[in-house]
Amino acid sequence: MRKLYHHELSPASRKVRVALAEKRLEFDPVIEETWVRNESFLALNPEGEVPVLVEAEGYVLADAWAICEYLEDSYPDPPLLGTDPLMRAEVRRLVAWFDRKFNREVTEPIVQEKLIKRVVSGGTPDSRLIRAGRANIHTHLRYIAWLIHRRRWLAGDMMTYADITAACHLSLVDYAGDVPWEEHPQAKDWYAIIKSRPSFRPLLEEWIANIRPPRHYADLDF
Amino acid sequence: MRKLYHHELSPASRKVRVALAEKRLEFDPVIEETWVRNESFLALNPEGEVPVLVEAEGYVLADAWAICEYLEDSYPDPPLLGTDPLMRAEVRRLVAWFDRKFNREVTEPIVQEKLIKRVVSGGTPDSRLIRAGRANIHTHLRYIAWLIHRRRWLAGDMMTYADITAACHLSLVDYAGDVPWEEHPQAKDWYAIIKSRPSFRPLLEEWIANIRPPRHYADLDF
Repeated sequence: MRKLYHHELSPASRKVRVALAEKRLEFDPVIEETWVRNESFLALNPEGEVPVLVEAEGYVLADAWAICEYLEDSYPDPPLLGTDPLMRAEVRRLVAWFDRKFNREVTEPIVQEKLIKRVVSGGTPDSRLIRAGRANIHTHLRYIAWLIHRRRWLAGDMMTYADITAACHLSLVDYAGDVPWEEHPQAKDWYAIIKSRPSFRPLLEEWIANIRPPRHYADLDF
Repeated sequence: MRKLYHHELSPASRKVRVALAEKRLEFDPVIEETWVRNESFLALNPEGEVPVLVEAEGYVLADAWAICEYLEDSYPDPPLLGTDPLMRAEVRRLVAWFDRKFNREVTEPIVQEKLIKRVVSGGTPDSRLIRAGRANIHTHLRYIAWLIHRRRWLAGDMMTYADITAACHLSLVDYAGDVPWEEHPQAKDWYAIIKSRPSFRPLLEEWIANIRPPRHYADLDF
């Protein structure tokens, strides 16, 4: 059976879980706490990061984006990367936007301070960073609204890795209670559609490290 | 004519320049100083980062990795991404390794402090960061040696984006004079082969911001 080493607090892990579910590929999930040194995990991925996918034949795939592209290469149905080179370039640009810019400006300051610190070190959250993340998120929610005003989904006429990546980051910030949905109704409508997909349900149903999510987190009519 | 917005100090820009040259695609280079706000450039790429490729037909492509995948999609000859899904996954894993881990541990601390600060702000380099980068580079040069002991190139039997990405990061650290080649002869032999490729020559021949590179920088028999 295929195995996925992942962690609930890793947006990259969430993306691969959703992608596997969208492509109807079954897997055994294994939670890996990457902040605890684990030689057998480092033998799989010397970078020491989740997610890592191990195929039933034993092939080891590391790095979330390499895994997503591999899934598209090997299991192209349904497609999650777009249908022509220009659309694929737009999907990849937006994936990089959320994995790099959104991650740096929003996910890291909020999720690191409010959730990861609590799980890993018990350290005190830095409220300046949380405030910065809360201020930065508005630009991104406006950008989502701008994109879906022009297209049905973020990168074009079909749901792609761009939507999945954005939604996985937002789901973690939402778990921390810091997405101002009421001020961004278009982004909220787009997220509601993704939330209602069966591939997204397992993410919404799990509690992370005994931290109770806000009431609306798993609610499809939030 | 195709246009590439780039900067000499951006490893991502260097990668796309080498890829275009390997695929024998001509382009007009345009230097973009991303630290100076430029509305017309932001209209091309709201993230404000180089490289950005504008095809002759007007298609705008942003994000280095999206551009590299687009080039492979649209101009597959010569291939730079590997020949089957597993090799492509290995290429992408190593590209992510150098663009994320090597960049964070080596390129940023050294190139930011020694070159970018001098060009952008004139600020004083932080010698603790430079020392950290110099200490971190050994693991990566040993990893390169470990990989090419098992394979001809970093990801397999052919030169790929993995080699190009690693070499572009190293070329900037080498410009700063901080690659301890003599202690890592296998990595040096691998780099010497890449250095001698015609696609790499333009990078080696240019001076960055009137900073003289070390004598061995452009020397093919360094």
